[in-house]
Amino acid sequence: MSYSQRVGALLRQAGAEEGDYVKVVLDRSREYAGVLMPHHEFSDPDIIVLKLKSGYNIGLRMNEGARLEVLSKAVRKERPHRPANKSDERRRVGVLGTGGTIASYVDYRTGAVHPALSAEDLISAVPEMAELCQVEAKVVFSIFSENMMVEHWQRLAAEIADRLDSGDEGVIVPHGTDTMGYTAAALSFMLDDLPAPVVLVGAQRSSDRPSSDAYTNLISAARFCTSADAAEVFVLMHESISDTTAAVHRGTRVRKMHTSRRDAFQSVNEGPVARMDLDGKVEMLSPCRKRSSSKVKLRPAMEERVCLVQFYPGMSSSAFGALLRAHKGAVIAGTGLGHVSHELVHVIKDVVKEGIPVVMTSQCLNGRVNLNVYDTGRDLLSAGVIPGEDMLPETAMVKLMWALANSSDPEGTKDLMATNLRGEMSDRREA
Amino acid sequence: MSYSQRVGALLRQAGAEEGDYVKVVLDRSREYAGVLMPHHEFSDPDIIVLKLKSGYNIGLRMNEGARLEVLSKAVRKERPHRPANKSDERRRVGVLGTGGTIASYVDYRTGAVHPALSAEDLISAVPEMAELCQVEAKVVFSIFSENMMVEHWQRLAAEIADRLDSGDEGVIVPHGTDTMGYTAAALSFMLDDLPAPVVLVGAQRSSDRPSSDAYTNLISAARFCTSADAAEVFVLMHESISDTTAAVHRGTRVRKMHTSRRDAFQSVNEGPVARMDLDGKVEMLSPCRKRSSSKVKLRPAMEERVCLVQFYPGMSSSAFGALLRAHKGAVIAGTGLGHVSHELVHVIKDVVKEGIPVVMTSQCLNGRVNLNVYDTGRDLLSAGVIPGEDMLPETAMVKLMWALANSSDPEGTKDLMATNLRGEMSDRREA
Repeated sequence: MSYSQRVGALLRQAGAEEGDYVKVVLDRSREYAGVLMPHHEFSDPDIIVLKLKSGYNIGLRMNEGARLEVLSKAVRKERPHRPANKSDERRRVGVLGTGGTIASYVDYRTGAVHPALSAEDLISAVPEMAELCQVEAKVVFSIFSENMMVEHWQRLAAEIADRLDSGDEGVIVPHGTDTMGYTAAALSFMLDDLPAPVVLVGAQRSSDRPSSDAYTNLISAARFCTSADAAEVFVLMHESISDTTAAVHRGTRVRKMHTSRRDAFQSVNEGPVARMDLDGKVEMLSPCRKRSSSKVKLRPAMEERVCLVQFYPGMSSSAFGALLRAHKGAVIAGTGLGHVSHELVHVIKDVVKEGIPVVMTSQCLNGRVNLNVYDTGRDLLSAGVIPGEDMLPETAMVKLMWALANSSDPEGTKDLMATNLRGEMSDRREA
Repeated sequence: MSYSQRVGALLRQAGAEEGDYVKVVLDRSREYAGVLMPHHEFSDPDIIVLKLKSGYNIGLRMNEGARLEVLSKAVRKERPHRPANKSDERRRVGVLGTGGTIASYVDYRTGAVHPALSAEDLISAVPEMAELCQVEAKVVFSIFSENMMVEHWQRLAAEIADRLDSGDEGVIVPHGTDTMGYTAAALSFMLDDLPAPVVLVGAQRSSDRPSSDAYTNLISAARFCTSADAAEVFVLMHESISDTTAAVHRGTRVRKMHTSRRDAFQSVNEGPVARMDLDGKVEMLSPCRKRSSSKVKLRPAMEERVCLVQFYPGMSSSAFGALLRAHKGAVIAGTGLGHVSHELVHVIKDVVKEGIPVVMTSQCLNGRVNLNVYDTGRDLLSAGVIPGEDMLPETAMVKLMWALANSSDPEGTKDLMATNLRGEMSDRREA
């Protein structure tokens, strides 16, 4: 969807283009100045979006009588082309787009509109980034994140390894929020011995609403990449619904916990690894792997045929058995401490005997499974179930995909699942 | 497991029996007085459990040299049998056990040990209840809650309807916590026009730990039944990890969100309906159905063949299709606003054409699905998916079971799913 005829004409008459600094007068009492943002495919055709000095975006309805004038043309027109070169002292940060347009558009999933974006475009859309670092941007692919498959994780992991091998001091991965947690977990296991941080970043609010979180999240990610002594896969998003801090979550511990809030991403069973304020101050909150001169080891192999199954009362044991047998491994999100019905315990016992590993997690999400408390748990242990400890069900699923492809026998798979490899589980403590 | 020989002998010598008020001297500095609680099957054989005056339970290890004496015999021995009669002015409250021992044992899932409990036993174990109300207790069945099936929900609903028909002013249902949320949702839909509250109550801490939550939760449930002007199905559990307040959650909005914490049960997408302090004060926090003289309508029919499926990246479309076709209806926990991969949208389209209704909810749990924002959502709507609004995936599954059995055609099912029947969804607001 584009602008209405009337608003289109108004912009043309004013000579206003995306990126220009403009003044809008809606009526006698409402006047705004800001950077004209690209029109969003889902925006009302009469609404234009300005990025205010505060960093907030605001959508303005251009009713009859609204006026617009250009105060200054876009910075990019004046900025000389500046190729990356060795004399540039700014730290080099890679940006690997996975879907849609980064920075200009809040919703990366509208990629169909602007599927590719050059480093220069990015810099002009988020000029603060250019002051912080030398950005090397590339669009790896451009899909809605619910269409991410194992092959996308693998391509992305390879591109990240390339960027780090070539000396980038951090890699930012703008990503749709729907499956960002899954991708973060997958990259965590695929990338071993990381020398620098990999930061997935998304946005929950589209650009035609006030205070989109895309810009602050991207800037915070760039600051984290250039200043934090951390070398893991992280997800960086707003920490609260206000615009004051960003939270940096470990890639194996994070889950999207709200459909629309800007603080949708939450660390589960641990706190965020770091907090960043808008001034760029990084506060480390938990221990994490430090930067080093290590060379990243890429281990992208994954067994795709792994299922994640939530148990519920009355679940059909025949459908459950058929589902498990259509896969090479299964993660169950059981009830409470990690339980399923008596009937299903028998199915699991048979399936495990047939060589399909079954990992138990909890649909409670918070807390740890414990298969030693009740009869059902002990029966599950006897049946050969692997306790998922305090792993998220989604992380356990991704890890099982990886463990199956990176071990040579069932015992090896079990060992990998029981070992804390990327902070995905904590040691058992007395509850 | 029972007491060790040594501790057994110590108790016999002192003439101490369950329910007696005893003094225990562990050593020079540690002396306790309290009611001797029943021995728990999972307790260490050298540990005895006392209920202190504060209401807390404490487990005491009876090492060599520990002493015990009876200060006064159990109240029940002195209490005359008091049959329910019309001259009794206390409000009558039904207690319907679903598994294990209520009150004496914290973990209702240890039913095998003490499967039945009379009203008198209950009163002596939780004497405060007898001061509050006239308790009519019955053990309906005795199973681990992960073994609850639709037929158990139906039997329980019928028993509750009987109790309310006979004039009980509230019904308490002690229940294992694993599937208590599912049962609460099922009872919510099965019981229409409730004249009085139905309160499910559980416990997270076993009786051999200090500060078990069973007693305070049960007492709070009894107080709620006798004093609150509320007539829905609720879950009552600790509001926080401290022992000061209980939260009363709507049965269709509550989910177990921690494997072990006492405040594991949380209302999702709304706050608790009421808060109770230890003095018995009820603070109503949200509107709910009031008590009335209505006669409960029992609508226990349910279609069991409904599945709940969480979508994840790389999900096999053939396994997904086979699973859905093995059922009469499906609830999907999609990503974000309610999405699945492009491939699965096609499967859903076919399945819906074949007459299997598919309801979309979000694995984020918090927030509302919105199938109008992105292409994927619009494709799902075109495919005939029923938006689950802000319903919990688990509640949507239970509701679909009920809606399929209580409607005569697909349109009727869709209408029921789209209508807020028991507070399970809220009106769409501008986000």
